[in-house]
Amino acid sequence: MQEEISLGELAVRFGLTLRGSPEHKVSHVATLSQATPGSLSFLANSRYRKGLKDTRASAVVVSAAEAEGCPVVALITPNPYLAYARIASLLHPQMRATPGNHPSAVVARSARIHSSASVGPLAVIEEEVELGERVEVGPGCIVQRGARVGADTRLIARVNLYAGVSVGQRCILHAGAVIGADGFGFASDRGTWVKVPQIGSVRIGDDVEIGANTTIDRGAIDDTVVENGVKLDNQIQVGHNVTIGAHTAIAGCVGISGSTTIGRRCMIGGGVGIAGHLTIADDVVVTGCSLVSASIKHPGSYSSGMPTVETRMWRRMVAHLRRLDRKER
Amino acid sequence: MQEEISLGELAVRFGLTLRGSPEHKVSHVATLSQATPGSLSFLANSRYRKGLKDTRASAVVVSAAEAEGCPVVALITPNPYLAYARIASLLHPQMRATPGNHPSAVVARSARIHSSASVGPLAVIEEEVELGERVEVGPGCIVQRGARVGADTRLIARVNLYAGVSVGQRCILHAGAVIGADGFGFASDRGTWVKVPQIGSVRIGDDVEIGANTTIDRGAIDDTVVENGVKLDNQIQVGHNVTIGAHTAIAGCVGISGSTTIGRRCMIGGGVGIAGHLTIADDVVVTGCSLVSASIKHPGSYSSGMPTVETRMWRRMVAHLRRLDRKER
Amino acid sequence: MQEEISLGELAVRFGLTLRGSPEHKVSHVATLSQATPGSLSFLANSRYRKGLKDTRASAVVVSAAEAEGCPVVALITPNPYLAYARIASLLHPQMRATPGNHPSAVVARSARIHSSASVGPLAVIEEEVELGERVEVGPGCIVQRGARVGADTRLIARVNLYAGVSVGQRCILHAGAVIGADGFGFASDRGTWVKVPQIGSVRIGDDVEIGANTTIDRGAIDDTVVENGVKLDNQIQVGHNVTIGAHTAIAGCVGISGSTTIGRRCMIGGGVGIAGHLTIADDVVVTGCSLVSASIKHPGSYSSGMPTVETRMWRRMVAHLRRLDRKER
Repeated sequence: MQEEISLGELAVRFGLTLRGSPEHKVSHVATLSQATPGSLSFLANSRYRKGLKDTRASAVVVSAAEAEGCPVVALITPNPYLAYARIASLLHPQMRATPGNHPSAVVARSARIHSSASVGPLAVIEEEVELGERVEVGPGCIVQRGARVGADTRLIARVNLYAGVSVGQRCILHAGAVIGADGFGFASDRGTWVKVPQIGSVRIGDDVEIGANTTIDRGAIDDTVVENGVKLDNQIQVGHNVTIGAHTAIAGCVGISGSTTIGRRCMIGGGVGIAGHLTIADDVVVTGCSLVSASIKHPGSYSSGMPTVETRMWRRMVAHLRRLDRKER
Repeated sequence: MQEEISLGELAVRFGLTLRGSPEHKVSHVATLSQATPGSLSFLANSRYRKGLKDTRASAVVVSAAEAEGCPVVALITPNPYLAYARIASLLHPQMRATPGNHPSAVVARSARIHSSASVGPLAVIEEEVELGERVEVGPGCIVQRGARVGADTRLIARVNLYAGVSVGQRCILHAGAVIGADGFGFASDRGTWVKVPQIGSVRIGDDVEIGANTTIDRGAIDDTVVENGVKLDNQIQVGHNVTIGAHTAIAGCVGISGSTTIGRRCMIGGGVGIAGHLTIADDVVVTGCSLVSASIKHPGSYSSGMPTVETRMWRRMVAHLRRLDRKER
Repeated sequence: MQEEISLGELAVRFGLTLRGSPEHKVSHVATLSQATPGSLSFLANSRYRKGLKDTRASAVVVSAAEAEGCPVVALITPNPYLAYARIASLLHPQMRATPGNHPSAVVARSARIHSSASVGPLAVIEEEVELGERVEVGPGCIVQRGARVGADTRLIARVNLYAGVSVGQRCILHAGAVIGADGFGFASDRGTWVKVPQIGSVRIGDDVEIGANTTIDRGAIDDTVVENGVKLDNQIQVGHNVTIGAHTAIAGCVGISGSTTIGRRCMIGGGVGIAGHLTIADDVVVTGCSLVSASIKHPGSYSSGMPTVETRMWRRMVAHLRRLDRKER
């Protein structure tokens, strides 16, 4: 599974400056502290700098500023984490599934499945589904009527695509992800709720990653849209008719209410809640556990996550805040 | 799949006031801005009013107050969203599954399945399960020993009903919902935890909708109860022995701790946390990302979700709050 | 399914002080208010004390302090909830699955499955998986290449173990749990994201319980670790390279960001968010809906969950807090 590659070749291939012998070979990646001869390691976060001086790695990917402290061969680059990511992909390549449908899968006759695609055990492919080149549908996935999956996309296991959903190329969807369930739409009728049919769909662009147990609802009328390059962590809830702009990254447990538009290249921290019908500009950062309850018009960093203190002190802080209100009235 | 229907017939059928020709026909619904001839649209939220004057819809469902600005045929009603919901259901009817068990489903002999019910591919129906008339169990669902599902209820796909759970009539359960897993009950034994058997069940009423990846735990001894007409969005967690009153609607990512009782017709915003052993009155509204840590005795609207500001300002606000505590001590 | 047992035998077996006749028998547990003759009940939370005096239970497990008010046979112990847990496990024993592979399961030839283990309908066991003695893999579970499951562990239904994950003995994993999906690791490359391969795994100790739809990501390089005796509720997200110390209990909807270490015997309330790269000491309590954004070095209780007030009052409190900032600048 793992290749061996010389440091010289890595330097050439990824445009790194080599300090030390180009002859040594590495076969796998490791953290600074766990590395052994044959390991390639990296230092991208100064928090882990103290591991550098004792590392037993054969080579370390570092910035020029940190190269000084590197006791072994250094591969120098302005962005060590990026270079590490590329080297790790080379040393630990993804296994590919064997093309074809597993005999236990239930595949509708009208499905158009490219001959290079694979459908795993106990997966269900309904009528008129389209699976592109090299698509991998893992065990237990359910791809419902008319859904379309672009080339090289992988549904790891137990992923649900509801009817009509489309997913672009080179995406990865993790186990338990549900794409295209009904949005939460009900009209009030004197104290009871009448369901509003959810007849839109979900359109997911290329190079999107969707984490385990994340849910993206189908649109009420128009579609819910996830643009190219978006990265969604686990357990995120995306409401109907949301649009998430290209290359935005969203951490776990975020909830986005219906009809909100998030800009491009945003970074949304874990546990954030975003209200409905808002517009968030491009290049906005929201730190963890904040509540976005109004549109954000300008790039920048926004917060409202309250950090913990000792419970006794917290109780007093809450009491003071309430008293402040009574005083000023 | 779609019917065509005249505006006159819609007006009669749903008690709407028609302003314009009753002859035109509509075949589908659309948003004001995406509508084309043949579309029926609606205006229920003044936020979208600007789309009204340029719409190409054949007809728009509006309130009397907005009818003035409608450039096409108007269908006038005090509750446009409700009328829209009903018309959309007529124009976009739900496809029904074919009765019978898919050959790939694993169905126990002792299960009592109505002849009009359907069990989809790769579903599991265990011993002594009961499925009522026209029940649809979608692909990959698992209905465990002795669970009961009432007439016209649909388990869309990959839904789990644990042993003994009961679900009423006309419910919809979305993919990944788990009903009846063990509640979180452990007794402390000198620093370790001893499991408390969770021997209650879950009873879900009629006309309940449960979103994707929502979880409802079984009771510790007595049952967890979800009353008629409750609507639960995605990724909600309902602890053991919770009761949710009739017609309450709960948005995504809410967590409700054990033994709490929520009243009828409540509306709980997204991301709310509700502590255990509380009682919440009927007709309570809780806005998004609030923490309910004490019982609420009176109807009304309650909040504690802190809205985002720029991160630098937020840091100062937190520091002031802490200083306030030190000052007043 | 249920045994009948005399109170005398219970007293002896669990070291309880019996006040009343040892002859009576009980067959099942019940809450104080729902109990009937033959029921064993308990009082562990003074909140429920008022149910004691009218109970129809045959016997009640109580503390010495509460025994006075018990109108029926009392089984007295310093920790009634613990004694109740043990008695309930005796009266309501877990049904065991029949050993062997269900014919509809898809089991790889190279999997090593103990003869006393069971694999349920429509489960998938991939190459080189190991299942220990009496392991139960429920319906729809997917155990991927090389994953290992220790003796007496039960995967209830539709659980996913990704490749290489290991789970210890006597664990319970509930439906929809996903163990070992890729961590959220991406390197920035001029406005787009490059995936960082997630090549670590997940190691779960003995006696761990994992709730429905909880997700635990595999490590980026080293492993994510859940130590012995940890109890995780539903819908929890555990990021890559997190370590959770032995006997820590975490309530529903908690999110833990990558590379954070949580100590032993901690109790984390529902909806808490914990930032990445932190260290939390042993014996820390964090109350519900708090945000832990810095390491916690000392045992104790920590909070930042803001309790709800009426929405109008809340709006004023937020305005005051902002004004405070403007005043002091």
